[in-house]
Amino acid sequence: MASAAPAPKPGVLLLRRTDADFAAALRARFRVHDLHASGAPLGAFLATAAAEPEPPRAALVMAGGDVLVDAAFLDAVPSLGCVVTTSAGVDHVDLAQCARRGVAVAGAGEAFSVDVADHAVGLLVAVLRRVAAADRYVRAGLWPAQGDYPLTTKLSGKRVGILGLGSVGSLVAKRLQAFGCAVSYHSRARKASVAYRYFPDARALAAGSDALVVACALNDATRRVVGRHVLDALGPGGVLVNVARGGVVDEQELVAALRDGRIAGAGLDVFQDEPHLPPGLGGMDNVVLTAHQAAFTEESSADLRELMIGNLEAFFSGKPLLTPVMTRPQ
Amino acid sequence: MASAAPAPKPGVLLLRRTDADFAAALRARFRVHDLHASGAPLGAFLATAAAEPEPPRAALVMAGGDVLVDAAFLDAVPSLGCVVTTSAGVDHVDLAQCARRGVAVAGAGEAFSVDVADHAVGLLVAVLRRVAAADRYVRAGLWPAQGDYPLTTKLSGKRVGILGLGSVGSLVAKRLQAFGCAVSYHSRARKASVAYRYFPDARALAAGSDALVVACALNDATRRVVGRHVLDALGPGGVLVNVARGGVVDEQELVAALRDGRIAGAGLDVFQDEPHLPPGLGGMDNVVLTAHQAAFTEESSADLRELMIGNLEAFFSGKPLLTPVMTRPQ
Repeated sequence: MASAAPAPKPGVLLLRRTDADFAAALRARFRVHDLHASGAPLGAFLATAAAEPEPPRAALVMAGGDVLVDAAFLDAVPSLGCVVTTSAGVDHVDLAQCARRGVAVAGAGEAFSVDVADHAVGLLVAVLRRVAAADRYVRAGLWPAQGDYPLTTKLSGKRVGILGLGSVGSLVAKRLQAFGCAVSYHSRARKASVAYRYFPDARALAAGSDALVVACALNDATRRVVGRHVLDALGPGGVLVNVARGGVVDEQELVAALRDGRIAGAGLDVFQDEPHLPPGLGGMDNVVLTAHQAAFTEESSADLRELMIGNLEAFFSGKPLLTPVMTRPQ
Repeated sequence: MASAAPAPKPGVLLLRRTDADFAAALRARFRVHDLHASGAPLGAFLATAAAEPEPPRAALVMAGGDVLVDAAFLDAVPSLGCVVTTSAGVDHVDLAQCARRGVAVAGAGEAFSVDVADHAVGLLVAVLRRVAAADRYVRAGLWPAQGDYPLTTKLSGKRVGILGLGSVGSLVAKRLQAFGCAVSYHSRARKASVAYRYFPDARALAAGSDALVVACALNDATRRVVGRHVLDALGPGGVLVNVARGGVVDEQELVAALRDGRIAGAGLDVFQDEPHLPPGLGGMDNVVLTAHQAAFTEESSADLRELMIGNLEAFFSGKPLLTPVMTRPQ
């Protein structure tokens, strides 16, 4: 009995850069249309893919690139039924437009959350205990020349407010409880399942906190929510940590507050205009700056590759996505 | 009825530098013999104090200065009945010589432990997640110029071995459990009260760990215990954190292991020859270096001043010391 011809590989739009290993893993399973390998501009690339006899039904994207999955993108490839993103946040995907067209969206699930929470706590310790600043001091040979490093600020026992008690915020809270911190939070809705103190808005949270950790999604309700009023509520002894998105913070106000001593310090992994810093920030000694790397460890990267392939395979075989992104009720 | 003349203030040897506030607080309560204010060499200073009609019966010292409370010191001031140190470790006080002479020793108790544990965890995150190195990368403008920072190493889920499960080590363990780490330890004796896995020696602990946190006292049993064999047991993926004493680690072997990639990185707050670093360490990108500051926050400093005065007052009024240092059974 002759076996049936193998089914053709399903088509996938690859809209992010990948290394050779991952590209090979994708090509073993899918017919890959690679934007960056094509050298074509996005519009032409999408038009070519859409005109194929069997146009691609899924797309692999990521945040922080220049590809936005918006109405124009979705209109250009009407065959799309699934968008898989590799980012913790999904502000680069218009979820409402996807929902309107019946396009399923898979995210990173909680693959990143643990690493982001670890990094957030690391930034908080680094800011209060001046880890990076002291490292500069020691490397510059100032310890023998200028004497002991000045006293720093205690973390244990501090009141820490968490803005956004999702998977990242919850893991930050768990870690900080072990440090003896008093955790409180603000999020869209009070969580019945946690005993942390709830504040009705970001400003009240900041006023009741020695440190504010930003761990919320970026959306219209959170854009620049950490502005002058919130920073002044945090106050001259307060510190800010942001591992969410640069756009949640008004960076001009943040730089001014740091410069004027209206807050004590900041630990920032994300910025409005990455990879560029807002003017004035890079020269400050009371900030710790990392390169949007909270989510990216060797371990999470490997986990995530499996997850992306798993989501694509689930979609093409008609099974539920492994890590669907839920569209919020409006 | 005439009131009795006020009792003369008891005499105290002050063998550490202090700021004006604390010096005033001491002078309000005690007749202070201040080594550094006297300008005299230690021997002459002690001889002068000992020759007074009412020689001082207590001394306030600290680690990291050049005063060692050894047999010669104690012989010079036979009136001494109490030594109060302001340091977490007491390797600058010869406890056996004190015990032989009936000299009580008060330490910092656990005033420092919380801050040291917080700092240890901060160093561990900083080493694995490259917080200080990434801060250098961002400040140097390399993010736009050279692209994303390389992937770092996950903390959560790692096996962390703690060398010395005293007050600091126990607090480190509690924090790391909240990060999802698998904690194990080695100390002089297995602790019946904890469920962490026990290893019979430092080498076995290192072999079973992805990260080794040194949190033990420095004594003859622990001097240079982290040498070549322990570092090689930790292995090329392993990282070392030391918040205890520089002397617990063989620094030449550590620098060689870091240089040769036989371990992955280190976070160090303490060094053999402070404030000097061992040659070669300051230029390495895979280390985080702070200036023996794990114990020193504004908050712990204030707590400690109260504790030092409280111990002196307890001694002079014949009450038990607040935070006696226990002499170990030999």
